[in-house]
Amino acid sequence: MVCEILCVGTELLLGDIVNTDGAFIAREMAAMGFSSYHQTTVGDNPGRLREALRLALSRSDVVIMTGGLGPTCDDITKNAAAEAFGRKLIFDEATREDIARFFEKIGRPMTENNLSQCWIPEGAAVFYNKWGTAPGIGIEGEIDGEKKYAVLLPGPPAECEPMFMECAKPWLARLSGDVIRSKNLHLYGIGESAAEAILRPLMESSVNPTVAPYACEHEVRIRVTARAGSVEEAERMCAETAAKIRETDVGPTVYAETDDPFSAKNAMVTTLISELRRRGWTFATAESCTAGMIGSSVGDIPGASDVFAGGIISYANEVKENVLGVPREVLKTVGAVSEPCAAAMAEGARRVCGSDIAVSVTGIAGPGGGTPEKPVGTVCFGVSTAAGTYTETRHFNGKNDRAKIRRLTTAHAMYLAIRTMRGEI
Amino acid sequence: MVCEILCVGTELLLGDIVNTDGAFIAREMAAMGFSSYHQTTVGDNPGRLREALRLALSRSDVVIMTGGLGPTCDDITKNAAAEAFGRKLIFDEATREDIARFFEKIGRPMTENNLSQCWIPEGAAVFYNKWGTAPGIGIEGEIDGEKKYAVLLPGPPAECEPMFMECAKPWLARLSGDVIRSKNLHLYGIGESAAEAILRPLMESSVNPTVAPYACEHEVRIRVTARAGSVEEAERMCAETAAKIRETDVGPTVYAETDDPFSAKNAMVTTLISELRRRGWTFATAESCTAGMIGSSVGDIPGASDVFAGGIISYANEVKENVLGVPREVLKTVGAVSEPCAAAMAEGARRVCGSDIAVSVTGIAGPGGGTPEKPVGTVCFGVSTAAGTYTETRHFNGKNDRAKIRRLTTAHAMYLAIRTMRGEI
Repeated sequence: MVCEILCVGTELLLGDIVNTDGAFIAREMAAMGFSSYHQTTVGDNPGRLREALRLALSRSDVVIMTGGLGPTCDDITKNAAAEAFGRKLIFDEATREDIARFFEKIGRPMTENNLSQCWIPEGAAVFYNKWGTAPGIGIEGEIDGEKKYAVLLPGPPAECEPMFMECAKPWLARLSGDVIRSKNLHLYGIGESAAEAILRPLMESSVNPTVAPYACEHEVRIRVTARAGSVEEAERMCAETAAKIRETDVGPTVYAETDDPFSAKNAMVTTLISELRRRGWTFATAESCTAGMIGSSVGDIPGASDVFAGGIISYANEVKENVLGVPREVLKTVGAVSEPCAAAMAEGARRVCGSDIAVSVTGIAGPGGGTPEKPVGTVCFGVSTAAGTYTETRHFNGKNDRAKIRRLTTAHAMYLAIRTMRGEI
Repeated sequence: MVCEILCVGTELLLGDIVNTDGAFIAREMAAMGFSSYHQTTVGDNPGRLREALRLALSRSDVVIMTGGLGPTCDDITKNAAAEAFGRKLIFDEATREDIARFFEKIGRPMTENNLSQCWIPEGAAVFYNKWGTAPGIGIEGEIDGEKKYAVLLPGPPAECEPMFMECAKPWLARLSGDVIRSKNLHLYGIGESAAEAILRPLMESSVNPTVAPYACEHEVRIRVTARAGSVEEAERMCAETAAKIRETDVGPTVYAETDDPFSAKNAMVTTLISELRRRGWTFATAESCTAGMIGSSVGDIPGASDVFAGGIISYANEVKENVLGVPREVLKTVGAVSEPCAAAMAEGARRVCGSDIAVSVTGIAGPGGGTPEKPVGTVCFGVSTAAGTYTETRHFNGKNDRAKIRRLTTAHAMYLAIRTMRGEI
């Protein structure tokens, strides 16, 4: 089946917001096995929206529309969809009650114009909105003798994304009478093309579950997506394929498995935190070139305070020396970007913060500061535990920009902490 | 004139990447005064691209295309554009030399398939690419008796964005014989609707320069865009309108002016750094709930090491006490989220890092940890200098997510440091 995403919003045409809904839905639809050949964005204009929807329904089986659902935009998306499918709008009392409950929960009065949101195309499925007021809608019907489907979702990503996952996805999966489940395998230290070369036979022979690699900045993600008659069956199929992947040569590079988007996006840091929790350990950082990015990434995760003691941002050499206790000799002889300095930083952070494990990074993020011996992208790492201190030097590609080198450094430092706890280094 | 953005890339349809090029170009085109009614994305498919381009050229004057320019995608964008304008491709020796120079610079051999990038539609303008190999292209011509324009840019944002600014924008501005210049005023501590209400008369009376507000997460940006016969004239017009804006009631909230995208995106931290440099001061941080985000933001800016000494991430109370010297009494009585604690943290960071000024933050980022007295979103700030210590408490909206509360906290801490140096608090 072919799907198409049609986003509605003048703010998208003006570039005031980036269209993250489109990418999110595209990815989920691809994982469910839908093909996609077009994405379109139009503004809050009924005529152009009607025309864009007509074109989309003429060339695709399923059209997912986002935005244009609220009273401030005259509900143009709902009106256009009702018209395309030849449906009247009818007042839905259950929707009114649901919206009234939402306002009660947030303690604000429901205004008159919210009532427009209770008018629903006849025979459509209503997706109640736990994250806002505009309900989502699923419509199926015949247009010019062909079966067509439209899904309408609110524009704000904080409503669109969970409503897609909780409402639209099961509704769409039901089209084939199936449920869909996914699992991600997270690979570190292997490139996308190398992973793809190894997994190519499995990818080609796997129709259900599908196996698809995605290159992320610091890792490769392999997404396994199964379609089955029950959740249990789909999960079993995902697990089976994940086990097969682990048996290939990519196996040793798999550092985590995730099955929800938040964990997938934050796999490295959530893995770090779960390894710390498993041991009842606390974590500390000593950061030079990342300047707090490792600590901040750990702090992104709710409840990180269980395991995160704190850290030292030792940008200036004086802080390395005075707070972390890096010997002046080290700074004077081999310099701040050196394994002896990284070792002393990690040991210092562990001592000063009183943690069980500490990581350190010191390097040259660029664009300035590189030398022939230590070009931009050179980073030294340290990991200190009661058992001793490990150090290594990495040479990230100096052609990357400063921000990317710092993000790669952050991921690698966490990876080294994970491997240390797992006894792999 | 009506413009339209047409993005080419199967990776966009699969949702593997978010279409940031689209938003970037849309915003710049809107600022230049172009209207925009449609954005379309298609995959690396010649037939569908040809059809999408035909449709776009039939309804818009200018089509900006991104992606599909390299050898790996068979240069489908260039072929489609040449065909639409009825042009032959001719081999451009100057482009070959430019690409050869690029490879020489990065020290890698130029491969045979890069030669495909040297074929340019006859009569087109070539935009040499300093950030990669695929040149951009500008084509103008008549289609069905109407004057039409197409701009082709590479897809990777790191090439697309600077090439748009340096090559495509002047080429498009030339269409009207004019140059375009913009200036941003950055407002802190005022909402978008309040700013808009104050500026509404100016916005409505200003056709050239245009005045447009944009709500960003922690600030409101007012963008002034002038079109004139010369750079000097356009800049003079921007400066004049900026001065008028400063005379209104939004004036006291303007904390910075910027005129390039990097500074605009990072206005708070670049303003902080320039205030530090002006005084020859060094900066330090003591971060609890932000866990390194302030330090990391400062570290984002190349050359920050001039002014950034370092900081302490004092997530655990033990680190607040042992490293920063927060009195145990304070932690036991008023607690870690209190102004006395923030004061002691800022003073501690200044002392420990040996800096001229230090800021501290300690608060409840949520989702857990809130109490009736200190709900989620409560954050205490401290700023310490030789002249003394300032503290304040802010209540960010606890309905924001953890990540947003931490970002708002980061911006506010920097703002307090700026105001302290300016003698405003």
